[in-house]
Amino acid sequence: MTQQSRPSYSPATFRPLTFHDALPRFRDGADTPRAYLERCLETIAAREPAVMAFAHLNPDGARAAADASAARWRAGAPLSPIDGMPIGIKDLYETRDMPTEMGSALFKGNHPRRDSAPVQALRAAGAVILGKTVTTELGMSHPGPTRHPMDPRRTPGGSSSGSGAAIGAQMLPAAIGSQVVGSLVRPASFNANWALKPSQGALNRGERQGYSQSTLGVHAGSIEDMWSVAVAIASRVGGDPGAPGLYFTGEDAPAAFRPRRLAVLETEGWAAAHPGAIAAFDQALAALRAEGVAVLRRGDHPLLEMLERRVADAMALSRDVVAYESAWSVANLMAKDPDALSDSLKARFAVGCSVTLAQYRALLAERDEMRRAFAAMGGEVDGFIGLAACGPAPILGDTGGTSLGITHTTGNPAMNTASSALGCPVVTVPILAVEGMPLALAVSAQPHQDERAAAIARWIGAAIAPIVM
Amino acid sequence: MTQQSRPSYSPATFRPLTFHDALPRFRDGADTPRAYLERCLETIAAREPAVMAFAHLNPDGARAAADASAARWRAGAPLSPIDGMPIGIKDLYETRDMPTEMGSALFKGNHPRRDSAPVQALRAAGAVILGKTVTTELGMSHPGPTRHPMDPRRTPGGSSSGSGAAIGAQMLPAAIGSQVVGSLVRPASFNANWALKPSQGALNRGERQGYSQSTLGVHAGSIEDMWSVAVAIASRVGGDPGAPGLYFTGEDAPAAFRPRRLAVLETEGWAAAHPGAIAAFDQALAALRAEGVAVLRRGDHPLLEMLERRVADAMALSRDVVAYESAWSVANLMAKDPDALSDSLKARFAVGCSVTLAQYRALLAERDEMRRAFAAMGGEVDGFIGLAACGPAPILGDTGGTSLGITHTTGNPAMNTASSALGCPVVTVPILAVEGMPLALAVSAQPHQDERAAAIARWIGAAIAPIVM
Repeated sequence: MTQQSRPSYSPATFRPLTFHDALPRFRDGADTPRAYLERCLETIAAREPAVMAFAHLNPDGARAAADASAARWRAGAPLSPIDGMPIGIKDLYETRDMPTEMGSALFKGNHPRRDSAPVQALRAAGAVILGKTVTTELGMSHPGPTRHPMDPRRTPGGSSSGSGAAIGAQMLPAAIGSQVVGSLVRPASFNANWALKPSQGALNRGERQGYSQSTLGVHAGSIEDMWSVAVAIASRVGGDPGAPGLYFTGEDAPAAFRPRRLAVLETEGWAAAHPGAIAAFDQALAALRAEGVAVLRRGDHPLLEMLERRVADAMALSRDVVAYESAWSVANLMAKDPDALSDSLKARFAVGCSVTLAQYRALLAERDEMRRAFAAMGGEVDGFIGLAACGPAPILGDTGGTSLGITHTTGNPAMNTASSALGCPVVTVPILAVEGMPLALAVSAQPHQDERAAAIARWIGAAIAPIVM
Repeated sequence: MTQQSRPSYSPATFRPLTFHDALPRFRDGADTPRAYLERCLETIAAREPAVMAFAHLNPDGARAAADASAARWRAGAPLSPIDGMPIGIKDLYETRDMPTEMGSALFKGNHPRRDSAPVQALRAAGAVILGKTVTTELGMSHPGPTRHPMDPRRTPGGSSSGSGAAIGAQMLPAAIGSQVVGSLVRPASFNANWALKPSQGALNRGERQGYSQSTLGVHAGSIEDMWSVAVAIASRVGGDPGAPGLYFTGEDAPAAFRPRRLAVLETEGWAAAHPGAIAAFDQALAALRAEGVAVLRRGDHPLLEMLERRVADAMALSRDVVAYESAWSVANLMAKDPDALSDSLKARFAVGCSVTLAQYRALLAERDEMRRAFAAMGGEVDGFIGLAACGPAPILGDTGGTSLGITHTTGNPAMNTASSALGCPVVTVPILAVEGMPLALAVSAQPHQDERAAAIARWIGAAIAPIVM
């Protein structure tokens, strides 16, 4: 790596790929979904060899879908605001026309030839399913091949590695990701994505219902596309079974909402935060205050302090909950071929086998306490703000320290564990830069207030000037 | 069918196969799990051609497992009270050594070579996985080949057809079933099973998490075996993700508990109940009162009347909830080959496609109201009692009327819809006979009070003499 190639990302100049603003040109015939797709394919051809965001690509299928979409636009009858949008699907979710290999040798060639619930919804909305994006091994910690699009020495984050990187590399306007601990918000931050980790259960996870705190979400180059993709899913296949699904008042992103009062949610990630990240965050808070937003810190309010104390163990809790819940399915893989599993996965399996039912119940009760503390603070503020990651994407091989048995080869999830355990919506706002790399703010709200979180995020993105440390 | 072959089941003389009472002989060497298995296989050889309870059998694998169990008993080191128990698994759940065909031509030969969570737990407890039991098409209404073991003109019930019939035919001491609407309690009643439909989420459904009101449960010839199987699962793989799992204080069935006060839960099934079933039920209530148990009817208590009114639409609600939740997965099958799906499944799919997200949310809210009404009555009584089915197993071809679009080719689930929607535990008590066929009482309790329901059921089974109408 030469001195000249040091990363120089700036949120002031970065132009992610967007789709919503192409719609007028689709309507008047100046552009077509097929031409849009071909531009994506050109970018992919140029950048994919270095980024390795995709586990599979289906350009022929995508071209046919884009042509069908073009015909609908010509006829003035698009199916939705995402009709014709090329989109990537995290390779944990089944697609009828591509394998689902989940980043594991044990699923090599796995091809159930059916569409997961969100994929089915996206197709029904006219979206163009272009490829499967790389995930870590079974969505857990062992990394896949993907490199950061702005600096190949760095991780793109995980487990939604390919989805985050495909947006960061301007290959796609949107991609599906998921999060159990920190798998969506962290790569979104690393790759300058607008992303939605929705309320627990808000978007139907299809066949992947095995965790009590996992969500399916959206990475995008813009909040407009992010929201339209989420609505396309929720309106067609709803949320998880028994959940009310994403609440929305329209297919388009909510209008910007200027909050009167926000609470900072530091979380256990604060102790591990990069000094530049904290400095950028402080600047952002100063800018918010300058806009008239009251910002509470943990010392300002006893309920906020109580909440911070409750969520301070969210990583340990999440690790054990997830390990317990996945133990039976990992046992099947252990029976097939333990040598095909990473050491980190085997370590997690050992944790899962060691957690008793009584301990699991205690963890669920502890998580309920976290959620009650979050609800108790809910009426005091319009929303919550924090950092979406501890810092910029770390250099590969820098594990960022190991804590609690999780090796952070795709970056430290400590800023994400609280919102995962809380089941609350998070929207990332990619307006910071540290070390020439992206960093995002994280806007949260109470469960089912996804639309409010998006509205506040939209306002912040427009009202606050980009911050480059 | 000649006059002589009319069914003549009597709960006073029927001797189901039991396992718990073989344990002393396993310990002293007078019997072995292998010999026990061979006796099961003899019964199966004799009765299976007429009953057709099994979709698959694995006698070789079962013999190897039984021999391993025998060695553990010889060494004085059994893994659990069900070590060596031959058991059947409803063919919706994956087993590594047998296909999982789900009663559908579209899953013919489907063989993922992995164990579902409950199967894994049962193996870990030493149980002998002998076969897959017949289910209706995808666990919905279209029947499989199974005939009633006590009268081949009749349905064994569904969707846990093979599990119920295998117990009724004395082929097995226990089998795994499941229920979304009425799939476990009804066939248990038809086949004189002791059965547990546990609290929602109490036993891990493994890969089958797609419904918000489905449970995995146990069919058995005795309450002792029923409970030990349930505990073997819960203690090893817990409940569904996010659920606290079955609460139990030991591996053995709880001691009989004499309730002071029970409430009758008539449900919408009352209007469709067989006159003989009502007469038998009234005799049972009289016997309970004679034992000093206070029995409330709906007119006796305003909260009970409110509860009955709330659950009066449980069938329509369950139908729409289930249809909505399954629509995306059935869509995949429709895309593969609609001709391979039954008309009843296609009708249900059409319902699912017609339910909007807003309607689904209203259904969930309505179900929550039902649950609150049940909780409100909870403190007034020790438990609830009702009929486990509208009557004895109907003659095949008698659809029992069609209501709300459900064709009851495996019997009317109307007595089971309330407890399914309520998510409460139900234990069947097979001590009634009508038309020479079995009928069971259904004992319910509040969610997570499975052990209390079992304790009351055990007491009733011992305290009330069999009733033959």
